Amino acid sequence: MSRKGLLLVGHGSKLSYNKELIEKTAAHIAEKHPEYLVRPGFMSMNTPTVEDTLNLFKDDDIEMLVVVPLFLAKGVHILKDIPALLGLPEGGTRGTFAHNGGEIPLVYAGPIGPDPLLADLMVKNAEEAINADA
Amino acid sequence: MSRKGLLLVGHGSKLSYNKELIEKTAAHIAEKHPEYLVRPGFMSMNTPTVEDTLNLFKDDDIEMLVVVPLFLAKGVHILKDIPALLGLPEGGTRGTFAHNGGEIPLVYAGPIGPDPLLADLMVKNAEEAINADA
Repeated sequence: MSRKGLLLVGHGSKLSYNKELIEKTAAHIAEKHPEYLVRPGFMSMNTPTVEDTLNLFKDDDIEMLVVVPLFLAKGVHILKDIPALLGLPEGGTRGTFAHNGGEIPLVYAGPIGPDPLLADLMVKNAEEAINADA
Repeated sequence: MSRKGLLLVGHGSKLSYNKELIEKTAAHIAEKHPEYLVRPGFMSMNTPTVEDTLNLFKDDDIEMLVVVPLFLAKGVHILKDIPALLGLPEGGTRGTFAHNGGEIPLVYAGPIGPDPLLADLMVKNAEEAINADA
C-alpha cells in the first residue's frame, strides 16, 4: 500500500523541549495513523533539518507529501521560510515534490491556529494541574 | 456559583495571529466550560498584559486561579518569566493569589507539550489541507 508522507516541521530550540515535542508528536501520529509515513524536520538549531527530511522522503514509497508545521500561529517561518524550502510562492499551499525520478503532489498545511481541539487541550492541562498532588 | 478563574497566557507578537489565537481559544474555552471565568493575558507586544489580567481577577467572584500558558513547550517564559509574575519559585506550580482582601489558591499549568490530542490536531490540519479545493 502506498502511503502519504507527513513532514512535521518544528521550530527547533537550544533547549531540548521543542525537539522532544516534535519527536513525540510524530510518534503519536505514526502510532495512530499508519496511512502516514511521518518524519520530523527542524527550521533551526536541531536536526534533521527540513531539507534533510525532504531528501529522505525522495526515496520513500509515498503517493503525496503533506507538510504540517507544528507552530502555534502564522509568522515569518510559516509565511515565508517554509514555503521557500518547499518551492512554493508566499501564500501557496499546493505544489509538486520531485520524487524518485518523477513528481508527486505536495500539500502545505496550516499551523495549529484557533481550534476547539486546542481549547480542549488547554482545559485538560488546567485540570491536570488542579488535580495533581500538591 | 463561584467559578475558577482561568488566565490564558499568550506570547504576544507584532503580527496579529498570536493575539487572535489566544483570544479565540479563550472564547472557545468560555463557551464550552462555564465553570471557568476565562481571561487572556500577554507576555509582550499585546495587551492586556499578564499583570493587567491578574489585576482584573482580583475583584472577580472566583474560588481559585489557574494560569494556563498557550505555549508549545517549556522555555524561558514558562520556566522563569511567568513564575516570576505569579510570585512562584522556578519550578513551582502552586501558590496563592491575593484576592478581594483574602487569598485563594493559584495553580500554574504546563504548556501544550506532547499529547495525543495535539497529534489529532496535526492530522486534522493535514487532512483539511489535503481535502481543500486546490
